[in-house]
Amino acid sequence: MNQLAVAPSPGRVLDRLANVSTARGAASLGERLAILDRWVRQDLIDFEAELAVIPRGAKVVQRAAHHLLDLRGKHLRPLCVALASRFGDGFTPRARGPALAVELVHTATLLHDDVVDIAERRRGQPTACVVYGNAASIFAGDWLLVGALKRIASAGIDGLLDKMLSVIDEMILAESVQLERRGKLEADEAQLRAAYFEVVEGKAAALFRWAMTAGARAAGLSQSQETALDRFGLHLGVAFQAVDDELDFREGTGKDPLVDLREGKVTYPTVVALERDHSLRPRLVAALAAESPTDLAAIAAAIRDTGALAATRSLAEEHVDHAIAVLDELPAGPAREALVTVALASLERLS
Amino acid sequence: MNQLAVAPSPGRVLDRLANVSTARGAASLGERLAILDRWVRQDLIDFEAELAVIPRGAKVVQRAAHHLLDLRGKHLRPLCVALASRFGDGFTPRARGPALAVELVHTATLLHDDVVDIAERRRGQPTACVVYGNAASIFAGDWLLVGALKRIASAGIDGLLDKMLSVIDEMILAESVQLERRGKLEADEAQLRAAYFEVVEGKAAALFRWAMTAGARAAGLSQSQETALDRFGLHLGVAFQAVDDELDFREGTGKDPLVDLREGKVTYPTVVALERDHSLRPRLVAALAAESPTDLAAIAAAIRDTGALAATRSLAEEHVDHAIAVLDELPAGPAREALVTVALASLERLS
Repeated sequence: MNQLAVAPSPGRVLDRLANVSTARGAASLGERLAILDRWVRQDLIDFEAELAVIPRGAKVVQRAAHHLLDLRGKHLRPLCVALASRFGDGFTPRARGPALAVELVHTATLLHDDVVDIAERRRGQPTACVVYGNAASIFAGDWLLVGALKRIASAGIDGLLDKMLSVIDEMILAESVQLERRGKLEADEAQLRAAYFEVVEGKAAALFRWAMTAGARAAGLSQSQETALDRFGLHLGVAFQAVDDELDFREGTGKDPLVDLREGKVTYPTVVALERDHSLRPRLVAALAAESPTDLAAIAAAIRDTGALAATRSLAEEHVDHAIAVLDELPAGPAREALVTVALASLERLS
Repeated sequence: MNQLAVAPSPGRVLDRLANVSTARGAASLGERLAILDRWVRQDLIDFEAELAVIPRGAKVVQRAAHHLLDLRGKHLRPLCVALASRFGDGFTPRARGPALAVELVHTATLLHDDVVDIAERRRGQPTACVVYGNAASIFAGDWLLVGALKRIASAGIDGLLDKMLSVIDEMILAESVQLERRGKLEADEAQLRAAYFEVVEGKAAALFRWAMTAGARAAGLSQSQETALDRFGLHLGVAFQAVDDELDFREGTGKDPLVDLREGKVTYPTVVALERDHSLRPRLVAALAAESPTDLAAIAAAIRDTGALAATRSLAEEHVDHAIAVLDELPAGPAREALVTVALASLERLS
């Protein structure tokens, strides 16, 4: 745990990206994405077909589950399974079961998160807990989780079920860390940084790692190739989360910086800002304790003034850099280029 | 599903019990329980040792899970694993993993049930959701579930993991049936009876069946012996639920008959009473619709006046009868006697 809890060292990433571009004839990200799209189109069609066979059923729990599944996500985790499998036997039926499973687990966690966070909207629509109630949403998540585990068990790929159970365990314990931090700001800077990476690894990166590993095992890759893809998944997951953190803060110029703290979520801009400006902590603590805090816009501005958003961007770039670097272990070719594109695109949040 | 949704035929059970007593020298239930106690004491000590090794951890989710585990239940389901195993290799370490797993799954369902039913007390203490909150209780249930599945997977006993995933699926869909019936009374009598047995099979009997099957497989029994034990678990589970239904109604002489209906729970006394007294339905519907219904004591009395409690008792006896009958497939001896005792005791709610 917390193997990532190190300060980012920005700068290298830009060199890395420049090298990538130069080496590949400086294809723009747009060109790269067009190539990626052609490369995975059939795989994603195959995945959609797999997704369509989940029994719909008339029970409220099944309807709540399909409410969210039908609001199709980006299918990033299945994409990771497919791209990893392309280094070997490809996105065969053997790889499609795990691809479906990882999407179901991801959807299950969203259903539960929305209950815990009392979220009202997701993917532009009312959440399942608003439409069908909390109990139905919780059981819908459980139902998808069981469906995912059944598919992994029946795929019979060595070790994948154990790994998924460990991933779910890690996700639950990361949720637990968040629960305990709700509305509190007692931890010191080092603890906050450690908690941030524990939660990111458990809630965001673990499923990406599993997806890459599943694709690797389904397609018969070597142990060293699998390890490289697992590391790619780890760094990609952290990069995604950091970009999310940054965009959340940047887009909501009037954002209440307490929302995340009240939900126990330590975001990277807050971690960095507290490290850099020691006057911030008492202001945040006072605002958390107040019935109706008035200082919010000023606190948000103070967080931004520390350069925390640039540091968050650097964290994302750093991990994209690492993600691309570990791909050196894998054979050059369109499969590797596709992963480079996914990593680069994560910074632009285009995919 | 609903293979049990047939009207009970009381009467035979008493002959069966008389035969059992005569054949075994009319040992009283008290004597039988004393023999059972000696027979399983070491197994239960071994089970407790197994239970003690679950990592405690400091996280709130782990503390919420141990809050309920520490308020030790009756360990009936692990007892079923142990007793089934005694027809073969006995309660070896191979059988103890599944015994622990079934207790963890049972505890997980209680944690989730208490959140859904907004329950305040369980086993004489405040519920985990009162002490640690709903979110922690939900994740605690998930954590125990994952722990159970890990143990089943690592036991490596053919088919047990798939079976448990199917059991959990069945439990979730039974919960879904209850959710949809909350505060409603639209179904006709046949639908209510069918729903009752669907929920009982899914929520009560399925785990007992799994426990018997797990003990059988861990101890190397034949397919026909395993099938007999599976049937025993089914009938035992239904008998337990029927006794619960009867006692709940009988103990609360001032019981509000709407509590269960508001939670979507169709209990057997209500099923029978609605079948027998057609004036009851409009009274129940009106009471459910009222802000503060005044008719409750009279409705409860009307339910009792239909003889619904005796019918519920008969249902329990009928299934105890079936449970004992299927044991004919198994070799006579102390293991079989132990299961007869468990079945008989279920009627007295002594174990």
